[in-house]
Amino acid sequence: MDEFELIRRFFSRHSDSPVVVTGVGDDGAVLRPPAERDLVTVIDTMVAGTHFPADMNARDVGYRIVAVNLSDIAAMGAEPRWMTLALTLVEADADWLDEFAGGLYEAAGEWGVVLAGGDTTKGEQLVVSIQMSGDLAPGTALYRSGAQAGDTIYVTGTLGDAAAGLGRLSEGPSGHYLARRFARPTARVRIGKALAGIAHAAIDLSDGLVADLSKVLEASRVGAELDVRHLPLSQELLDAVGREQALRHAMGGGDDYELCFAVPESLLPAEIASEVTAIGRISAEAGLVCRDGDSVVPFDDTGYRHF
Amino acid sequence: MDEFELIRRFFSRHSDSPVVVTGVGDDGAVLRPPAERDLVTVIDTMVAGTHFPADMNARDVGYRIVAVNLSDIAAMGAEPRWMTLALTLVEADADWLDEFAGGLYEAAGEWGVVLAGGDTTKGEQLVVSIQMSGDLAPGTALYRSGAQAGDTIYVTGTLGDAAAGLGRLSEGPSGHYLARRFARPTARVRIGKALAGIAHAAIDLSDGLVADLSKVLEASRVGAELDVRHLPLSQELLDAVGREQALRHAMGGGDDYELCFAVPESLLPAEIASEVTAIGRISAEAGLVCRDGDSVVPFDDTGYRHF
Repeated sequence: MDEFELIRRFFSRHSDSPVVVTGVGDDGAVLRPPAERDLVTVIDTMVAGTHFPADMNARDVGYRIVAVNLSDIAAMGAEPRWMTLALTLVEADADWLDEFAGGLYEAAGEWGVVLAGGDTTKGEQLVVSIQMSGDLAPGTALYRSGAQAGDTIYVTGTLGDAAAGLGRLSEGPSGHYLARRFARPTARVRIGKALAGIAHAAIDLSDGLVADLSKVLEASRVGAELDVRHLPLSQELLDAVGREQALRHAMGGGDDYELCFAVPESLLPAEIASEVTAIGRISAEAGLVCRDGDSVVPFDDTGYRHF
Repeated sequence: MDEFELIRRFFSRHSDSPVVVTGVGDDGAVLRPPAERDLVTVIDTMVAGTHFPADMNARDVGYRIVAVNLSDIAAMGAEPRWMTLALTLVEADADWLDEFAGGLYEAAGEWGVVLAGGDTTKGEQLVVSIQMSGDLAPGTALYRSGAQAGDTIYVTGTLGDAAAGLGRLSEGPSGHYLARRFARPTARVRIGKALAGIAHAAIDLSDGLVADLSKVLEASRVGAELDVRHLPLSQELLDAVGREQALRHAMGGGDDYELCFAVPESLLPAEIASEVTAIGRISAEAGLVCRDGDSVVPFDDTGYRHF
C-alpha cells in the first residue's frame, strides 16, 4: 500500500461542510471560512510512548489526537471547522489505519470538523500531529493573559481522572471509566464558545491544574487562591484511589483536557453554570496559594514538561 | 530547557504581518486573513533519515521544511501567509535549535510568512511538520485535474539537480550547487501566483517528473507527450553526471520542487515566459509517451513512494 492508496482508502471521506471548497487529494486544500470572523489555529502532536502508551488501541489514538486539538480550539473560544493531519507510521497496517481513521472521524464528526488534508510518512516511531482551525467573532478570543483580581476561577468537568486512568488502559477500549477519561477526553467546545468575549482568561488543562493555572497567572501578572475542598472529583476517582491521591492527581496530573477560566462571577453565562465548578479566586499578589479549609496545602509544580 | 523555554528562545520572533492578531504563546494563534479570499492549506512532514540525511545541517533542515510547504502553496497558485510547526526532537540541543530556527525564519522571511504557532515534543527520531496557509481570489486555485488536450506542459527551473545533489551534501552547507538544490529548494511562489486562474493544472515536483506529471494526467483523464531533448538541465548537472544520467534524474529523481503546469501556449503570462520551459503537450489519449527526437524512450515510474 503506497501513500496515495493509503490516503484514498482511509482519509478521503466525503464532507458536506460549506467551508471546504476542495479537500484531500491535491497539493493543498481550499477553504472558504465564514466572512468577518477571525481564524484560530492550533497544532498538537502525540508521540507513541511519550504522550500515550505505544500499545493504546488505534481507535482511541485517532479519537484522542482530534479531541486534544478540539480542546485547544475550545480554550480559545472558537468554533472548530477543519483540520489537517501529519501521520508518521512505522508501517502501513490496514487494520490499524482503519481503526485510527474511525476514531479520528468519530471525534471530528461530533463537532462537524472536516479533515481537509494531510501528509503520511514513514518513520521509526508513531507520531501524530493534527492542526485544527476554527473561527470566532473578531476581538472575542480567549487568552491566558486577561485574568483580573477578583475574578472567580472555574473548571469544567472533574479533575484527575485521566492521570489515574493512564495506568488502566490495558482493561481495553470499553474499560474503566478513568481509562476512558484518558483515552477519550471530552472537548469542552460548547462551553468555550459560550465564554468567548466574556471570560477574562482561559486555558485547557493538559499539563495539570497547578502547571496550567500558573501559566494563566504568569501571563496575567496576578496570583490566585484555591480551596482544594472545591476541586471537582469524580466518584470513580475517589473510589479508586482515595481522597488524598485524588487531590494529588487533580492538582498535578495532566491530560484532563478540561477548561480552566477566570471570569467575574456575575458574568458567568447562565447556560453553562451547571457544568462548571468555582475553585478559587484571582488575587492581585503574584503566586498560587492552595488551602484545605483553614490550612495551607504545600504543593509542587508537577506539571508535565516535555524536556 | 523545557518546552516553554525552548519556544520562547527560538520560535517567538516578532512579526509585523497584518494577518496575525496573536501569534506564538497561547493555546492557539488568532489570524485575520484578507477579506473575500479563499484559503489554501498544505501540510508536509520530513523525517530524518527518510526525507533527508539524518546529519544534514540544521539550518538547511529548517530552510527546507518551509521551502517544500511554500512549494505546495505555489502549486495551488496562492499567496503564502502563515504557518505552524510541529517539531519532534530527540534532544533539545540549543545550537541545533538556533540553526534550525535560523533556516526556518530565513525561508519564511523571503515570502513574508509568519510562524504563528507550534508544538514541540520529544521522540526517538527527528520529525518536522509544517502546516502553511495562504490565500487567493475565489475560484482561481490551481488543481491537478484541469489539464486539457492541446495544453502545453511547462516546468520551472531545471530538473534532476536535487537527486544528483543528495549524495553531495557532505560537502557542507555552502557546498556544491547540486547539493544546495537539494537542501534549499527554490519555491516558485511568484510563478504560481501568476498562473492562478489561468493555468489548467499544476503540481510541484516532489516525487519526480514522471510520477508527478502522471498524477496530473490521471486526475485530468488525459495523456501527454514529452520530448526529453526539451527537459531543462543545468550545466552543473550535465558536467557532474553526463547527459544520460542527467535525463534519468530529470525524469525519475525527486525533490526538485519545481512547478509543472499545463496551459494553452497563448495564455502563458508574459511576465513568467522567460522562467519556464515547454517540455511537451497534453494529449487526449491516456498515458505518457516520452520521445528523444524521433525515437520513443522507455521509462519506469521511479517516482518515490513512501511505502
